[in-house]
Amino acid sequence: MEEQHDCCSEKRVVQADKPALLKRMARLEGQVRGIAGMIESDRYCVDVLTQIAAARSALDAVAQQLLESHLKGCVTRAVSEGNSDEAIAEVMTLLKKMR
Amino acid sequence: MEEQHDCCSEKRVVQADKPALLKRMARLEGQVRGIAGMIESDRYCVDVLTQIAAARSALDAVAQQLLESHLKGCVTRAVSEGNSDEAIAEVMTLLKKMR
Amino acid sequence: MEEQHDCCSEKRVVQADKPALLKRMARLEGQVRGIAGMIESDRYCVDVLTQIAAARSALDAVAQQLLESHLKGCVTRAVSEGNSDEAIAEVMTLLKKMR
Amino acid sequence: MEEQHDCCSEKRVVQADKPALLKRMARLEGQVRGIAGMIESDRYCVDVLTQIAAARSALDAVAQQLLESHLKGCVTRAVSEGNSDEAIAEVMTLLKKMR
Repeated sequence: MEEQHDCCSEKRVVQADKPALLKRMARLEGQVRGIAGMIESDRYCVDVLTQIAAARSALDAVAQQLLESHLKGCVTRAVSEGNSDEAIAEVMTLLKKMR
Repeated sequence: MEEQHDCCSEKRVVQADKPALLKRMARLEGQVRGIAGMIESDRYCVDVLTQIAAARSALDAVAQQLLESHLKGCVTRAVSEGNSDEAIAEVMTLLKKMR
Repeated sequence: MEEQHDCCSEKRVVQADKPALLKRMARLEGQVRGIAGMIESDRYCVDVLTQIAAARSALDAVAQQLLESHLKGCVTRAVSEGNSDEAIAEVMTLLKKMR
Repeated sequence: MEEQHDCCSEKRVVQADKPALLKRMARLEGQVRGIAGMIESDRYCVDVLTQIAAARSALDAVAQQLLESHLKGCVTRAVSEGNSDEAIAEVMTLLKKMR
């Protein structure tokens, strides 16, 4: 079982704005459930797709926020500790997945 | 209150593969809840972002499926009925939102 | 050697707004050359990347225009001639490449 | 007229792999010219769009390379010098433009 440790080194990070992030995620979960409900009740494809586009934007906004906090926290710390190469390679891999 | 009518003309569409689509959406809802849980339990940013990228791919896959069914169903029908301009303008607007 | 035939069936399409499209492409070629010049003269990465983002938007705009003309011309025609399945499969493949 | 200075601080960066980057840009310029030629000679929309997708991938690959070198060079340096906030804000702005 994992224990709570310092940031990045032990791969645990308390997000500074955790309550706001969790609220965003709860709203996103509602959006996803809403989209399922639209498909369930035979709503017009274009209306469903418009909601999917909105959910995708919401997900991207969360990703941007987490990425910024990762760069400011973990990556900045890794650079200070002389581990910039590994941290930056990890960010590049991530950005490729996020494209 | 909306009534059930024929496809597109009245803006209601029964997706051919509705059960499969709903299963996908249920899985996606689980993914979104899982991501919230990861943030809640202070998981490493990169791990959270990797899951967000996976959820985004899942959402994009649903969008592709709906778009294909929209082109095959509603747009094809609109073209046959001589309403291609309106239908295609709608698709272009949608594609811009989906980018 | 290919001969000039009817639209889509023989896979040749005279773009309605060909001069405007060619002007856009010439401008884009200039942008690409400009980016090379910036790298050549050791310009700051962020300035180069900002120009790359602009060139990418210009390329996307051309793609949107061609896609719209493809839907209005070739796909509409294919649907009228009863070849909608093939035409739509081709569009879906294309949209995946364009993502 | 700008003078050649140290990296980032004075906003000039000699890319480590400058010849390879310039070769890539020259190839991309050829691709863009090739796309213009395809439009000029009335090639099928889907073929033109496929080449546009290829050019876009090539442009994205250059962007990834420059971004990685920017993170490894300028951003790492900014962090070491205590200017991480500004450098990271700049990267975030850039990533939004690159989406």
